Amino acid sequence: MRALRYHGVKDLRVDQDVPEPKCGEDQIKVKPAFVGICGTDLHEYFSPTFTPSKESPHPVTGESMPVVIGHEFSGTVLEIGPKVKTTLQVGDKVAVQPTIACFDCGACKEGFINCCDSAGFVGLSGGGGGMSEAVCVGGDFVFKLPPNIDLDVGVAWHAVEAAQLQRGEDALVLGAGPIGLGVIQCLKAHGANKIIVAEVAEERQNFAKHFGATHIFDPRHDDIVGKCKELSYGRGVQVSFDCAGVAASVKTACLAVRAHGRIVNVAIWEKEVPFNPNNLVFGEKKYSAVLGYQGKDYQGVINALSEGSMQPEKMITSKIHIDRVVEDGYMPLIKEKEKHVKILVDLST
Amino acid sequence: MRALRYHGVKDLRVDQDVPEPKCGEDQIKVKPAFVGICGTDLHEYFSPTFTPSKESPHPVTGESMPVVIGHEFSGTVLEIGPKVKTTLQVGDKVAVQPTIACFDCGACKEGFINCCDSAGFVGLSGGGGGMSEAVCVGGDFVFKLPPNIDLDVGVAWHAVEAAQLQRGEDALVLGAGPIGLGVIQCLKAHGANKIIVAEVAEERQNFAKHFGATHIFDPRHDDIVGKCKELSYGRGVQVSFDCAGVAASVKTACLAVRAHGRIVNVAIWEKEVPFNPNNLVFGEKKYSAVLGYQGKDYQGVINALSEGSMQPEKMITSKIHIDRVVEDGYMPLIKEKEKHVKILVDLST
Repeated sequence: MRALRYHGVKDLRVDQDVPEPKCGEDQIKVKPAFVGICGTDLHEYFSPTFTPSKESPHPVTGESMPVVIGHEFSGTVLEIGPKVKTTLQVGDKVAVQPTIACFDCGACKEGFINCCDSAGFVGLSGGGGGMSEAVCVGGDFVFKLPPNIDLDVGVAWHAVEAAQLQRGEDALVLGAGPIGLGVIQCLKAHGANKIIVAEVAEERQNFAKHFGATHIFDPRHDDIVGKCKELSYGRGVQVSFDCAGVAASVKTACLAVRAHGRIVNVAIWEKEVPFNPNNLVFGEKKYSAVLGYQGKDYQGVINALSEGSMQPEKMITSKIHIDRVVEDGYMPLIKEKEKHVKILVDLST
Repeated sequence: MRALRYHGVKDLRVDQDVPEPKCGEDQIKVKPAFVGICGTDLHEYFSPTFTPSKESPHPVTGESMPVVIGHEFSGTVLEIGPKVKTTLQVGDKVAVQPTIACFDCGACKEGFINCCDSAGFVGLSGGGGGMSEAVCVGGDFVFKLPPNIDLDVGVAWHAVEAAQLQRGEDALVLGAGPIGLGVIQCLKAHGANKIIVAEVAEERQNFAKHFGATHIFDPRHDDIVGKCKELSYGRGVQVSFDCAGVAASVKTACLAVRAHGRIVNVAIWEKEVPFNPNNLVFGEKKYSAVLGYQGKDYQGVINALSEGSMQPEKMITSKIHIDRVVEDGYMPLIKEKEKHVKILVDLST
């Protein structure tokens, strides 16, 4: 079958003779339709971190480069393994949760499969990927979809759930890139009151406004901590989300919340940053981190989409062909990143 | 009356003519018996931070230096204001919670008076202190004591409660100074399974062992993260307490806990330290900070003491006279700090 595979640094090829995977007894075989390009894809393109090399194949899949890419995807059910317990039927439109886990380590046994010691992703770690004609995944990782929509907001949903947001609370979102915009929408769906956004780029500020931000500030000119206090009777917001992932955003996220406030880190970091724990001590604040998503987050997003409390269509800023993923997908996302939120590869035609 | 007052840097005087405070309608007047010397006292002696200066009197007490010191103390009830609702009687032995709060800011209104915007302490911020013949505090801040014991463990109790420790969980304690030793005892009283302690000084290691540490390591020679994993079937402990407050202890505290583990900071920091949020991200760990204590922590400790599940007597390594607080109290705590845990000023004789 045809599949887009990652062979090494800056080496992405549409290979025509990739063996089509066989559907295991406890698997569902899916024909991908739309595949999102994620920041992780861009990062891996230049500097492979999660993609397993020949020297160290992935401990669960046993595979190494070249691997099929594409970990955010929707599609249609092609086949259902005989041991899968599901109400899904062949032809159903579905979203796939790409989690790969060992199901044997301590974290997995406690149900935190997204924190598995050998965690991986379909579309990064072997086991096939969305940029192909067929991919087989465990029966529990396939979710029936109402419409054809991108599900990157799964990460954002997980973050908002982790923050235990109560209806009517005020929130600060630092950074309105794809994840930040997802968080804004999920906050709205969860009934947040004020959704205060700190973002530099004007295009992204506009996206933020469209998706439900109630107050938007530019951290280059505005005192974000001061604004948060002003907007909350001098208290500070109840919860902040760091979707920017820089030293300044950690500090702002910690200082902008009130006593017993919660800070949720949604970013992945490349290095250490200066941090003063006193910014948490005076106020007994809680700093937590989230990683990816779990099945319940997928279901949460799908429910919110069904009810209409989330309408993320405008996040899709372009649809492109599999032959031009680098030129029409990766490059615009890097060079014109303020204009784009989510670019989908359209395999449906 | 006689009282030990702080007049400025390294200027502590036993003043003989300090006006005796009058008991307010909603206050209880206490005659202090034993007063602990705390790390904060030592810090303030050299570099006043919490003690209000002439230029900026404390917003709640309106007082500035000289102030009576002593914020950890027990004593006997001298007088009870007519509006105090209490079962206490004159002559009862009590411990005093020295919290000063405005009761008007957002944090106070939500019940987090230890996080008050204008938080202060009796014995640091004006409003009298333990190193005197009489002190008057709000009726809610006086707790009936079973025996005559020091209550510094209030902070540690609050930290263990904040960690929501479940019976049978394993914990790491970084640093076995006075607070770390308190945490060890509170962990034991809360039913922790393994209590793993990282401490450099041999004397403190011995104290840790006495108070209930099950495994003691020296971070100079031992791989603390590795040891925690070894002792928990490769998982990591469920909770860690940073009572050391250095860059290395933050990192160890984060890495030693398993997926969804909790890190509790019990230290106060003087500056920023390098911190990599990824140490929380991979495992979705939670980092929280505690500050002081609340009334329920005092009651928790007192109950544990009554039941015998805490026996902190050995923490008291010396009892001294009010005339020699610097020579026999501050200096040994600084120069021979491994030998001492808690030095009490004895005002009872």
